[in-house]
Amino acid sequence: MKFTIEKKLSGKLGRAGKIETPHGTINTPAFIVVGTKATVKALTPDQVKDLGAQAVLANTYHLYLEPGEKIVKAGGGLHKIMNWSGPTFTDSGGFQAFSLGAAFGTTISKLSKPQSNGFEEREKMSESVRSEGMPPLAKITEDGVMFKSYRDGGEHFFSPEKSIEIQNSIGADIIFAFDECTSPTADKQYQKEAMERTHRWAARSLARHKELQIESLKSPNAKPIALFGVVQGGRFEDLRKESAHTIGSMDFDGFGIGGSFDKQDIGTAVSWVNEELPEGKPRHLLGIGEPEDFFLAIENGCDTFDCVAPTRQARNGTLYTKAGKIHIDNTKYREFFAPIEADCTCYTCRNYTLAYVAYLARTKELLAHTLTSIHNLHFIVHLVESIRQSILSDTFEEFKKSFLEGYTKVD
Amino acid sequence: MKFTIEKKLSGKLGRAGKIETPHGTINTPAFIVVGTKATVKALTPDQVKDLGAQAVLANTYHLYLEPGEKIVKAGGGLHKIMNWSGPTFTDSGGFQAFSLGAAFGTTISKLSKPQSNGFEEREKMSESVRSEGMPPLAKITEDGVMFKSYRDGGEHFFSPEKSIEIQNSIGADIIFAFDECTSPTADKQYQKEAMERTHRWAARSLARHKELQIESLKSPNAKPIALFGVVQGGRFEDLRKESAHTIGSMDFDGFGIGGSFDKQDIGTAVSWVNEELPEGKPRHLLGIGEPEDFFLAIENGCDTFDCVAPTRQARNGTLYTKAGKIHIDNTKYREFFAPIEADCTCYTCRNYTLAYVAYLARTKELLAHTLTSIHNLHFIVHLVESIRQSILSDTFEEFKKSFLEGYTKVD
Repeated sequence: MKFTIEKKLSGKLGRAGKIETPHGTINTPAFIVVGTKATVKALTPDQVKDLGAQAVLANTYHLYLEPGEKIVKAGGGLHKIMNWSGPTFTDSGGFQAFSLGAAFGTTISKLSKPQSNGFEEREKMSESVRSEGMPPLAKITEDGVMFKSYRDGGEHFFSPEKSIEIQNSIGADIIFAFDECTSPTADKQYQKEAMERTHRWAARSLARHKELQIESLKSPNAKPIALFGVVQGGRFEDLRKESAHTIGSMDFDGFGIGGSFDKQDIGTAVSWVNEELPEGKPRHLLGIGEPEDFFLAIENGCDTFDCVAPTRQARNGTLYTKAGKIHIDNTKYREFFAPIEADCTCYTCRNYTLAYVAYLARTKELLAHTLTSIHNLHFIVHLVESIRQSILSDTFEEFKKSFLEGYTKVD
Repeated sequence: MKFTIEKKLSGKLGRAGKIETPHGTINTPAFIVVGTKATVKALTPDQVKDLGAQAVLANTYHLYLEPGEKIVKAGGGLHKIMNWSGPTFTDSGGFQAFSLGAAFGTTISKLSKPQSNGFEEREKMSESVRSEGMPPLAKITEDGVMFKSYRDGGEHFFSPEKSIEIQNSIGADIIFAFDECTSPTADKQYQKEAMERTHRWAARSLARHKELQIESLKSPNAKPIALFGVVQGGRFEDLRKESAHTIGSMDFDGFGIGGSFDKQDIGTAVSWVNEELPEGKPRHLLGIGEPEDFFLAIENGCDTFDCVAPTRQARNGTLYTKAGKIHIDNTKYREFFAPIEADCTCYTCRNYTLAYVAYLARTKELLAHTLTSIHNLHFIVHLVESIRQSILSDTFEEFKKSFLEGYTKVD
């Protein structure tokens, strides 16, 4: 994997660049489309490519449980089974293992405001666990995390080595070190302990990955896999800086920024980290985001992003527009014989009226999920691409101002 | 609409031909893909076209209830709203109105063997009505049928005139006269009464259609709509012949063959009808069918078909292969790293293993519906296309024999 910075944002940490992988180049900043179970929900890979996506991120936890990494490997690896020829990522599986477990026991629902980076999903899962009166599903030791499957309650164990072995079997271009993703309500002492454990796990992830790569790359057709280390440290400036310094000094190909932030402080928190991380390696902000998040994260030095929000909201009928979010069930859209957005170039807007898409959603037709997902992903992918272009053409500030001024509607 | 016979099957009623409509030509025999609610479930029109489908059939009953034919018309008509530029059909709405109603009161579940032509759907609906202790939902008079919506219980009335008005608003290329579709368990006396009513309704449908077409075709951009009359008569030879003679002598552009048949007698029953119908007009067998049905129906003179079975079975995990049907949940497919059928040219088989498609189905991923529907529709569309080619090349009997000998597996 090779990362090149093409242009920097004057006086800030932001930059436009490119990540070259064995399956093609990602022009950054870029939104990486989530395909949790080796499928972007409701879309064929052709549709994903057609809407402008450059890369897909799948989930190690889900693929490990079903169909199992051995079957993914026997089927020819992630790219081949899902028929996606472009770059791919997998996360480490840590987030999902923990999000069902002890660290998110009973306090998570007391959060006054769910965080944008995946905590809604986490909260939902924890609530479901609690409502069924089940015990906490994860137990953390120095060695790793013992967790129970959300599907059948079966016991499983992830260590840093195990996560790296699974990810090497799945075979994405870019994978992540195994980290402990703490609850946003955890106190500083716990955050510090977890961060230090994450640092030790990062070293173990790196060591195991090097062993596996040396072995794997003896085969003439094998493609190298890049490993990103994950920075943690919660909302604490000193911990974030310490984590970025420690992880940043290890021999990773790039970095992930994980855990919780206050939405309003996202730019500040990300800048603590990116000021410490080496400039010449790419930085992925895990589980972000919403349209307004990208500007702050990018100007503070993040290169790539992933988030389930665009597709999940699409399936729930929330559509992105440059004026803000709208909901498809609003009765005024029953006779709205124009595209969702008049100047949108996505497949959905080129071919269908909002009236028709709203009708499909109302009558529970499967095509509704496809058409709304295409629109929302196209919106987000092109928003981040537009931010990239604004960096290249020195118009970032103007673009940011004009987008955020327009993006206000909730309808 | 223009129908041309290209070649006849020697010594039989079957033929290959073409139906020219304002939205393109249908080479016959042809399977018309069902898009009940102006969408082929789980597929984009591009996917429908890519799998080889020539035309789509939508349902008047469903579109009338939601979004309403006025909204379909205001949106630009059926082709435009659903983004399908090829030929389209709508049925009359009669089947659905009756299938929820009095004519299918309490006796339908006593059928020892559900008929292939849609009665499974009907039976399921009737059972659901009964289990909720609701009164019969339809009441037939000479004027038409009063029915309650399966969605909200609201009262609605379809007369022949109303059905034709709705269908003209929806704007398909080929529409059907309003008929009474009787229960397969109805006695001969009732079948005769219903058939005679259907004949009177056919005349009224035709009269109203002519009025509307005269008015509509004054507009320079209007495209003519063809009207097919529907033959009924249950399983009785004399009634079927009488119905075919009566309907066949009216000024319809083509014909539908409706109602119930014993599956094993389908060829005989269809031949009664097609011997009477004028040779120079196309014949659509409504709600058929399964792979083995097409040979009998086609050699006995049917030109087009529609059926929900390929897509419904796909969503339930039943896949067609030349060896017979297989079920995707069979554990042996978990590691089946080859396409559903090695020599199938559909998008699914060109790009995915059965192991992956089975995994998507098992984990309830929406893409499973898309990929299985593409395969099953491709199978059926190409089977009927292959029968057409065998007529044109004088190899029908050989093709029929070889297909039916191979198509035996249930797995």
